[in-house]
Amino acid sequence: MKITILGGGGFLGRKLAQRLAAEGGLDGRPIAELTLFDLAEPAPLEAPFPVRRLAGDVASAADVAKAVPEGTSVVFHLAAVVSAAAEADFDLGMRVNLHGTLAVIEACRKLSTPPRVLFTSSVASFGGGQSALLPDEARQVPGNSYGAQKAAAELLLADASRRGMLDLVSIRLPTVIVRPGRPNKAASSFVSAILREPLLGLETPLPVGEDFRVWVCSPRRAVDWFLHAAVMDTAPLGIDRGVNPPGLAVSVGEMLAALTPAERALVRSEPDAVIAGIVGGWPAEFAATRAKKLGFAPQEGVPAILAAFREDDLAATRADRGM
Amino acid sequence: MKITILGGGGFLGRKLAQRLAAEGGLDGRPIAELTLFDLAEPAPLEAPFPVRRLAGDVASAADVAKAVPEGTSVVFHLAAVVSAAAEADFDLGMRVNLHGTLAVIEACRKLSTPPRVLFTSSVASFGGGQSALLPDEARQVPGNSYGAQKAAAELLLADASRRGMLDLVSIRLPTVIVRPGRPNKAASSFVSAILREPLLGLETPLPVGEDFRVWVCSPRRAVDWFLHAAVMDTAPLGIDRGVNPPGLAVSVGEMLAALTPAERALVRSEPDAVIAGIVGGWPAEFAATRAKKLGFAPQEGVPAILAAFREDDLAATRADRGM
Ligand SMILES: NC(=O)c1ccc[n+]([C@@H]2O[C@H](COP(=O)([O-])OP(=O)(O)OC[C@H]3O[C@@H](n4cnc5c(N)ncnc54)[C@H](O)[C@@H]3O)[C@@H](O)[C@H]2O)c1
Ligand SMILES: NC(=O)c1ccc[n+]([C@@H]2O[C@H](COP(=O)([O-])OP(=O)(O)OC[C@H]3O[C@@H](n4cnc5c(N)ncnc54)[C@H](O)[C@@H]3O)[C@@H](O)[C@H]2O)c1
Repeated sequence: MKITILGGGGFLGRKLAQRLAAEGGLDGRPIAELTLFDLAEPAPLEAPFPVRRLAGDVASAADVAKAVPEGTSVVFHLAAVVSAAAEADFDLGMRVNLHGTLAVIEACRKLSTPPRVLFTSSVASFGGGQSALLPDEARQVPGNSYGAQKAAAELLLADASRRGMLDLVSIRLPTVIVRPGRPNKAASSFVSAILREPLLGLETPLPVGEDFRVWVCSPRRAVDWFLHAAVMDTAPLGIDRGVNPPGLAVSVGEMLAALTPAERALVRSEPDAVIAGIVGGWPAEFAATRAKKLGFAPQEGVPAILAAFREDDLAATRADRGM
Repeated sequence: MKITILGGGGFLGRKLAQRLAAEGGLDGRPIAELTLFDLAEPAPLEAPFPVRRLAGDVASAADVAKAVPEGTSVVFHLAAVVSAAAEADFDLGMRVNLHGTLAVIEACRKLSTPPRVLFTSSVASFGGGQSALLPDEARQVPGNSYGAQKAAAELLLADASRRGMLDLVSIRLPTVIVRPGRPNKAASSFVSAILREPLLGLETPLPVGEDFRVWVCSPRRAVDWFLHAAVMDTAPLGIDRGVNPPGLAVSVGEMLAALTPAERALVRSEPDAVIAGIVGGWPAEFAATRAKKLGFAPQEGVPAILAAFREDDLAATRADRGM
């Protein structure tokens, strides 16, 4: 089978590619070819199957058509401009998150067999705030351009799926922690930083209170969900192709409790009203009843998330940051 | 004030233009210029203010920019490919209903003052079926391309509104009856036809049972809502710019009861499983609680709807159909 990862050079795209390489197949079927597509040519990947690495723009129908050749069975559409960048540059967000998705629909409908498409939507497409426990039927009322573009893309992909141009599963991902790399300007940056920086022996600010609650998952569990979405029976979904996966609702205090006292001491309270205002609008918890029935595995607790970061990413993060 | 009606040559666009001409102003302010924009140049309109009539394509940013000149205060965006046509031709529906809306955003953001935009979305963006009473928070899970394009357009317009490019009110219109003209291939055609055709003395088939319930409004009330949306205070809407207006939930039996016995006898039961299947998925009733609080007037009963059709459209319909 042929598989394509759009955004295959990004954080989750890379993790997914590595998992496919480690497993060698999908659903017991061998992988004939894996295409990794991103703005810059993705880094080489050691794998027991051929890997094509393509540079291109997901908003270009011609580029996406090259990335999704005839015979492609599964397209993982992860290419995106994420929330802070889409808010800072409306046109860029629209181009990549909306028009990029339209280019994916165009490429898929040209194939003789409609491919399974896994689309990564986001909890940023919901409002609701800290007090909310969002049911599966909750309406998406996005408070940011990224969330609006993701929710609109979900609707258009679902319609293309209903029409038989592709076979969609959209997953509204929680905040994925622990993200490697450096703290950045994203409002959610601290959610990873308060675990990652102390593990690196570095101080880090905490802009919200310890009772702040956030809906999270690990990159490992996100990849589990992608693979489940790639092989599951989609008939039980009917026309409603969006899934709120079973993440973990956790408070900052519970996250910090998983650190050693010495690590914990590196997290300094530095209240930031702007960040608190933005993240305070995010829903803290989802019921995720449907996803569990559909076989999506629930996220384990913070210790498992920390252990996975230590095993998978700590050494590379140290090296990247010249430590 | 300058006002533009995109889709100004259509059924509701024409009614809205006639109302503006009759009233001469909006919210007590005189109208300096009204632009009517449609695929074909709209028919002349007698009005106490200058009327520009433009032919153009709403999917062309250049055409829409001409239709929305500097100084425009209100844009009524009614241009659309309606449900049966958007289902029959995916690309046409995407071009007009999605890309047309993007062109409207582009035109509005170029103005020095963000205009009020009234967007006509549709109950076709909801599923739910006959047993549903849809609350204001109901999720849009469209079962047709038209509904998906309308729901996606709502999201993108709301985001542009949040960003200050325009000031949006989206109205999810019920089925508007009585539509003049002839029966057509739309699944909803019978909802108008079972009233209109008997009033013209013509037989007409009824494809569903008399207990079939439908959410309707009159063209007069739809225009009332457009004008209210054009002048209302939008602050109470917050970022949620979509409104389910207070239509009328009515059964086919109740509609037929408003006819005389002789007219009633012209409606022949002709069950059609295909039509019943499509329209059976439409929600029959909405709570519309928020819209009532926001000052949208509720739809009166079927006799008022019939009276309005007799006064406004019956003679013209007879003439159009050579009767
Ligand atoms: N990481 C999270 O916490 C999180 C949460 C919710 C949703 N998501 C979604 O999951 C997906 C993957 O997230 P990630 O954390 O790996 O993000 P990432 O930014 O690391 O990866 C996205 C990739 O898309 C690529 N890209 C951007 N513009 C492109 C273009 N025009 N053409 C081709 N490629 C382009 C980027 O170069 C990047 O490699 C995204 O769709 C994101 O919106 C992520
Ligand atoms: N009438 C109803 O029952 C109903 C119900 C729900 C929503 N709506 C919505 O209300 C609005 C008005 O409905 P209507 O009944 O007057 O429909 P209509 O079809 O009579 O009017 C729509 C107008 O848009 C024009 N149009 C189509 N493509 C265009 C293009 N590319 N460029 C410029 N103009 C174009 C058409 O020529 C037409 O005059 C539409 O947006 C429709 O989706 C109507």
